[in-house]
Amino acid sequence: MSKLSSLAQRIKDAQPQIAHASTPLKNQILLRIANRLIESTDEILEANRADLSRASQNGIPNVMLDRLSLSEERIHAMANGVRKVAALADPIGEVLFGKTLPNGLVLRKQRVPLGVVGMIYESRPNVTVDAAALCLKTSNAVMLRGGKEAINTNVALVRIMQDAIETEGLAPNIIGLVEDTSRESATRMMQLNGYLDVLIPRGGAGLIQSVVKNATVPVIETGAGNCHIYIDKSADLHMGAEIVFNAKTSRPSVCNACESLLVHERVAESFLPLVKSLLDTKNVIMLGCEKTRAILKDIPPATESDYAAEFLGYVISVKVVSSIDEAISHINRYSTHHSEAIITNDIESASKFTERVDSAAVYVNASTRFTDGEEFGFGAEIGISTQKLHARGPMGLNEMTSAKYIIYGTGQVR
Amino acid sequence: MSKLSSLAQRIKDAQPQIAHASTPLKNQILLRIANRLIESTDEILEANRADLSRASQNGIPNVMLDRLSLSEERIHAMANGVRKVAALADPIGEVLFGKTLPNGLVLRKQRVPLGVVGMIYESRPNVTVDAAALCLKTSNAVMLRGGKEAINTNVALVRIMQDAIETEGLAPNIIGLVEDTSRESATRMMQLNGYLDVLIPRGGAGLIQSVVKNATVPVIETGAGNCHIYIDKSADLHMGAEIVFNAKTSRPSVCNACESLLVHERVAESFLPLVKSLLDTKNVIMLGCEKTRAILKDIPPATESDYAAEFLGYVISVKVVSSIDEAISHINRYSTHHSEAIITNDIESASKFTERVDSAAVYVNASTRFTDGEEFGFGAEIGISTQKLHARGPMGLNEMTSAKYIIYGTGQVR
Repeated sequence: MSKLSSLAQRIKDAQPQIAHASTPLKNQILLRIANRLIESTDEILEANRADLSRASQNGIPNVMLDRLSLSEERIHAMANGVRKVAALADPIGEVLFGKTLPNGLVLRKQRVPLGVVGMIYESRPNVTVDAAALCLKTSNAVMLRGGKEAINTNVALVRIMQDAIETEGLAPNIIGLVEDTSRESATRMMQLNGYLDVLIPRGGAGLIQSVVKNATVPVIETGAGNCHIYIDKSADLHMGAEIVFNAKTSRPSVCNACESLLVHERVAESFLPLVKSLLDTKNVIMLGCEKTRAILKDIPPATESDYAAEFLGYVISVKVVSSIDEAISHINRYSTHHSEAIITNDIESASKFTERVDSAAVYVNASTRFTDGEEFGFGAEIGISTQKLHARGPMGLNEMTSAKYIIYGTGQVR
Repeated sequence: MSKLSSLAQRIKDAQPQIAHASTPLKNQILLRIANRLIESTDEILEANRADLSRASQNGIPNVMLDRLSLSEERIHAMANGVRKVAALADPIGEVLFGKTLPNGLVLRKQRVPLGVVGMIYESRPNVTVDAAALCLKTSNAVMLRGGKEAINTNVALVRIMQDAIETEGLAPNIIGLVEDTSRESATRMMQLNGYLDVLIPRGGAGLIQSVVKNATVPVIETGAGNCHIYIDKSADLHMGAEIVFNAKTSRPSVCNACESLLVHERVAESFLPLVKSLLDTKNVIMLGCEKTRAILKDIPPATESDYAAEFLGYVISVKVVSSIDEAISHINRYSTHHSEAIITNDIESASKFTERVDSAAVYVNASTRFTDGEEFGFGAEIGISTQKLHARGPMGLNEMTSAKYIIYGTGQVR
């Protein structure tokens, strides 16, 4: 048995303990984890410094160093995140529906945990704590595999969480960390059938593609966001420019940032200079189609692959379209089906766009940046699903559950 | 572009037509399909005779010939099945929840189609019509791939359904049939990312395993049923024997039939001869553990692989256990997580069993044979999911849908 499958076996063996833990016990564990994180600030920061020094020796870019780096403040934020999860309602045991069948069988459909959740993610160590907290709250065991850059930090965080679990009397192996961060171990983790009930990758397009290609366990794809905003011919252009500016520049590295702008030809001449004047204040590079470049003369051309790209930076592709139908079909072709918006004052356009655009979240007159579990009022999220099975859009606690049918009879046969 | 992907492209291109069809139009299409099936009885039977004669030349066993074979009566049953689907409520457009966020955004979560559904199934041609009807009703396009034995029948059925769709003014390619029934085409179909939103295999363990191994599109595993009945020490033994007899023999070839019997040691001596006397009337072969064979002296031993087997015939594995905990851990180890039952008069055992057994449907004092969309009151089913993601247990119309968030704002930015 490989090291990976023996870790998986230990997690699987521990899983029934959390599956049948009471809500108060689960909350007690979460609160203890939060306290232990604060108490262990020095230990965590020391481990984090080891990761940071290795990372900067390896010449990792500053934006990644920032993602990797923890501080007293960030540890407090992680602990507070865990406390917030403790305060959420427990979805496990909820009866989703029930009825008495004509033959007298009494049937109910009840929410249950998924079982063992596998998480593969990249450099941010706060995901280690966030994911563990959401899994514990929903009575799932979890196998965590973070990026190699964060391995020392992750080892420390998992040990602290395991100690807290053990103090509350449950098996620490409810949470397990894959310490082998090689590509091969990731591929083998994607094929742990019989151990993992679901695999949730969180990261860039490369990770998601590798999971889609290699995974044999059920997967929830998350996070890739080539999000569009379409400025309809009836749009309030000032509102449109503000929304594009916000969706592009308020946090360009996240999945709900706007990557592509579509403009109806009838308003292109007024709108494009207006939005450019805002985007210029943040040095956003606009890549345009021929019609766009006829209006904004000095911008570079957009290629086919630019329209498919998730830039995650200060770049936006732009296209002038001749109708809302062209906008919709462009979006359905190039989008990653995450979040899209229309800016319009026309009720028919709004309704057509929201019906026909095939994405997890479709907005009218608002920024795509709102696609987020916290913003939607779910209290927390483990990721944003861009697939149609099981969960779509921000995944809160409910999306971390399955269901079972429980049927009571009095001797019925068929 | 291969023949398979060009078929997939045609289905994908046609998909928006059914996605946005009104409920009355969808029902009209279904009723027209039902009528056309009846009107085309001769044509269908001729195609079916071609399949049957080739199959019997190839020496296919009688039970498979029976599955493959159609009759006037069976065509009527198919047509009635389609009419029943037409009569069901349309799930598409249902608002699952909604709220106004603190910033004034008005959010609703609305049921939408999955998109393009791929179905891979085996010899029974009625699945062609059932699956198409359920997909049309839920506004999904569908790519069908039946078994090679049924190819002539399936070609005829799909052509008839496509004609009916065209008569109602929609693109016939909403339904497509894969006519290449080679193993390679099946594997390629499992990898039609970008075309198929979900793949639902219906068939034996071999098919399901191949899909799990090869599919890169999202899959819903269905149908494998190694179902258990556990006779608790407090059971009404007469009720238990009747339930085992029903669950084993009323239709042994289906996935909700009982394949394995667990008996508490305290009642084994009374129960085993009782249930054997019933099972003997149908010549059921019992395969037992040592303790079972000490009581039922003349039965063959059960091997490890017998406990994991889905016999789909007149065979049952038997094991005497020393506690309900042993029964539960045996089930969680060997089961395919489809349906299990406990026979007990003890309220604590009932509750422990239903909580701890990790299967889609868990029964107290009733036959496992009730796990079925019709029996559960869903009106129809496309299969029985044995996985935990998206759908668990019988899949009715709701399970053939996804959801999207639609958010109206007035210029909100974040």
